[in-house]
Amino acid sequence: MTDPSCPFCPLVAALEHADTVRGPSGSVTRRIALLPTSVAILGTDQYYRGYSIVIARRHATELYHLSEAESTGYFHDMLRVARAIDRAFKPRKMNYELLGNTVAHLHWHLFPRHADDPTPTRPTWEHAHEPRLLSDAECDETIEAIRRHLG
Amino acid sequence: MTDPSCPFCPLVAALEHADTVRGPSGSVTRRIALLPTSVAILGTDQYYRGYSIVIARRHATELYHLSEAESTGYFHDMLRVARAIDRAFKPRKMNYELLGNTVAHLHWHLFPRHADDPTPTRPTWEHAHEPRLLSDAECDETIEAIRRHLG
Repeated sequence: MTDPSCPFCPLVAALEHADTVRGPSGSVTRRIALLPTSVAILGTDQYYRGYSIVIARRHATELYHLSEAESTGYFHDMLRVARAIDRAFKPRKMNYELLGNTVAHLHWHLFPRHADDPTPTRPTWEHAHEPRLLSDAECDETIEAIRRHLG
Repeated sequence: MTDPSCPFCPLVAALEHADTVRGPSGSVTRRIALLPTSVAILGTDQYYRGYSIVIARRHATELYHLSEAESTGYFHDMLRVARAIDRAFKPRKMNYELLGNTVAHLHWHLFPRHADDPTPTRPTWEHAHEPRLLSDAECDETIEAIRRHLG
């Protein structure tokens, strides 16, 4: 279920046992929740408040490579996180994106688009910006806010 | 189930009864298939060969506003189209995006990323390009290629 060349496979394995994982470069990955088919993590760049990523626990590169039960379970995990972000931060709109162009291991990006979004009608990718990095305490608060609504 | 201010609601209603719909500005929308919860249409700009959009038949703006049965059905419709595009055109990767920033009525963008993609590691939105408009015959061929694999 893992691909030795995939950077997400070891990350997922580590996140199955720890809330916080420090990478070789010192970067910190923070788990929001371990879900049946996925692990939800807080995006490092919180320019879009509540931005989270829902990574499949099993290595696969396309939704249609999974069995129907697996892809449906993964979709439900993602929806559960999207709903929790919505309830925690009440964005104007949610953007749900599964791309995999850089790392092909299945992961959904959940970008909440808030009332103060500078380019509300355009995809986030078109808006160059300085990353907004949170303090440890701010990360904890953001994760707790989402967890409270995970059900 | 419709919103009087939504531009997609009348389009969906028209596509329930016709393969091709001409808009007030002369733009033509071509249906690939009418599915249980959605209608799949061919993207007008075929720069990403096979680019399609899967629009929900019911007006809603977020996946988590649907019942679990509805959102799961809509996900399965989208997957069916994604798989058919994959089988028809064999892209290197698929990008699945539900944004709704311009028109909030639920619609998945399916962008096949091919071997000749000029910016394969980046989202399509970052790559400005002239739209690739197909002839009627080319549209028909593209739609037929996808339909053959819809199952």
